[in-house]
Amino acid sequence: MTISPPDTMQRVVLAARPKGSPKTTDFRLETIPMPTPGPGEFLVRVIWLSLDPYMRGRMDESKSYAAAVEIGDPMEGGCVGQVIASNNPGFEVGDYVLDRFGWQSHAVGTGEATRKLDPKLAPLSTGLGVLGMPGLTAYVGLNTHGRPKAGETLVVGAATGAVGSLVGQLAKAQGLRVVGVAGGADKCNYAVDVLGFDACIDHRAAGNASDMRQKLAAECPDGVDIYFENIGGITLEAIIPLMNVHGRIPVCGMIGWYNAGALGAGVGDGPNILPKVWRTILVSRLAVTGFIIFDHYDQYPQFLKEVSGLISQGKVIYRESIAEGLDAAPEAFMKLLEGGNFGKQLVAVSNDETR
Amino acid sequence: MTISPPDTMQRVVLAARPKGSPKTTDFRLETIPMPTPGPGEFLVRVIWLSLDPYMRGRMDESKSYAAAVEIGDPMEGGCVGQVIASNNPGFEVGDYVLDRFGWQSHAVGTGEATRKLDPKLAPLSTGLGVLGMPGLTAYVGLNTHGRPKAGETLVVGAATGAVGSLVGQLAKAQGLRVVGVAGGADKCNYAVDVLGFDACIDHRAAGNASDMRQKLAAECPDGVDIYFENIGGITLEAIIPLMNVHGRIPVCGMIGWYNAGALGAGVGDGPNILPKVWRTILVSRLAVTGFIIFDHYDQYPQFLKEVSGLISQGKVIYRESIAEGLDAAPEAFMKLLEGGNFGKQLVAVSNDETR
Repeated sequence: MTISPPDTMQRVVLAARPKGSPKTTDFRLETIPMPTPGPGEFLVRVIWLSLDPYMRGRMDESKSYAAAVEIGDPMEGGCVGQVIASNNPGFEVGDYVLDRFGWQSHAVGTGEATRKLDPKLAPLSTGLGVLGMPGLTAYVGLNTHGRPKAGETLVVGAATGAVGSLVGQLAKAQGLRVVGVAGGADKCNYAVDVLGFDACIDHRAAGNASDMRQKLAAECPDGVDIYFENIGGITLEAIIPLMNVHGRIPVCGMIGWYNAGALGAGVGDGPNILPKVWRTILVSRLAVTGFIIFDHYDQYPQFLKEVSGLISQGKVIYRESIAEGLDAAPEAFMKLLEGGNFGKQLVAVSNDETR
Repeated sequence: MTISPPDTMQRVVLAARPKGSPKTTDFRLETIPMPTPGPGEFLVRVIWLSLDPYMRGRMDESKSYAAAVEIGDPMEGGCVGQVIASNNPGFEVGDYVLDRFGWQSHAVGTGEATRKLDPKLAPLSTGLGVLGMPGLTAYVGLNTHGRPKAGETLVVGAATGAVGSLVGQLAKAQGLRVVGVAGGADKCNYAVDVLGFDACIDHRAAGNASDMRQKLAAECPDGVDIYFENIGGITLEAIIPLMNVHGRIPVCGMIGWYNAGALGAGVGDGPNILPKVWRTILVSRLAVTGFIIFDHYDQYPQFLKEVSGLISQGKVIYRESIAEGLDAAPEAFMKLLEGGNFGKQLVAVSNDETR
């Protein structure tokens, strides 16, 4: 089977480094000649692009765990695609593959870190969400760093997002009390009614950290044993005094601070609350551990087995939010950073019989 | 053998809760009638009182891992003393004992948490220092929470203090590069020349966090793997960007903030650097773990064996700073909080043939 590739492809490049929240003009949609795969390479038509909060960090020059995207280079991102030409014996035309192909309609792959997907086992898009990097992030963060025990209380932010929704469902399956934090009544209702969380607090309805603390305290009568950190900001400030002795804070992300300029500049609003946080870490013997999923791919097989089992038993539910077309990616990404998505954010880059 | 106790005893009570640094008027020396031990109790004449930074926390009303000292109650503290009257068959007159008898010349004990000391094995005062709580704190913090590996770099503050000096010497014995932070040239010279640290930085000669960072970076060419946190303040701010990936920060104390009012109020000077610290925890996958020695007394026998062995081999050196008389305790404590002590701070409460 040979599929003749078009003459050109599209990509979204970083046009300018954002100051605070990214703007439309920080991105540029380009049409460029279709590349030709060299020896050992293959050409992929992208079907799904994943949008994730970590991408905001790649747009800054400041130190991160991965190199920044250079101005004029395509934005980074995980994708599912189909091989349409191949000089690599390991990858045949028609194969479905997952790799970091970026915000592009087509990409050349080497196969080094490419994983093949079987579209009969699960919808291809799950390879970017509940069964992909966000799912593994939730699994490792909860189990390795959160060390959950039945009867404990867990709080997780971005509760309906790709990571947060799985953290909460996995914790419920292990017998914990789960309290989510999300933006808006719709998401909060979904977290409780559909995902089965015990409670969910609307951070948009909370005026400040002290208001937030009161609401959290009311839903966590026995205090908080695990705070799965993916938002930072007032939720973190609110929760610190509620942490139980020997509590755990796996630090996975801080979307609430990504856009504030807080991370680039290194400072946030208001007074310096570091002494308060540091003191609570001491007094309550907290374990605050940062983790990056790249360090934990060894857990992938076990994760895949466990979570795909839970999905087929109906114990894990996932939800996707789909933007149509690569040109819709910047806007969908900006919306994601503001919490405007509802479920795992994907871009449908091209049509496919599997969709 | 019967020793007839005097009719009165002395104690130092908390007269007022300090605002910021404690003042002389926050303490009061009292003479009260000598108590009589009841059934199962014994009376102790205190020989040595230990002064430790954690006592500053007990003077505040704010939440800590132990109850605050009430106004009018004696200040808390670990002591070595001798039994001078006993209604407890487990404790004989003449026995040397260690317990939390407080800032007092005499105290009644029940024996519940009292440990007997053999003055022939080691000087009695070491039970309050290198072979006591501060020593165990250093041992557990370094080994359990710091997880040192030969070839790594460790930074420790209050480098000539009871905890810091042992942390550094134990780390040197395990093949780490050890950089201390201390106040003044004398202490820094002692850390390098006597304790064998690779370098020691004088925080009094460093103007601000950025100056401090430059000095630390110069002495830690391979970055910092373990920051043993016992000071907070500008050293913490300086060191955060120098932490290596997978670095560990055992949080043992924060003397640099105890007096600033920072901990009571929960806020420190300058802008809110929590986002910067939180981001580094994520990006560099740091493990920041608070610990309190009360949770780790199970390691005491192993610690005692190991560290007393190192002392007798001359591989661990300790230094004491002695104030004479219970009435000298408040001033010695205030000096300790300002870093004016040099080595483990003790108060010689009474004379004894073992001194």
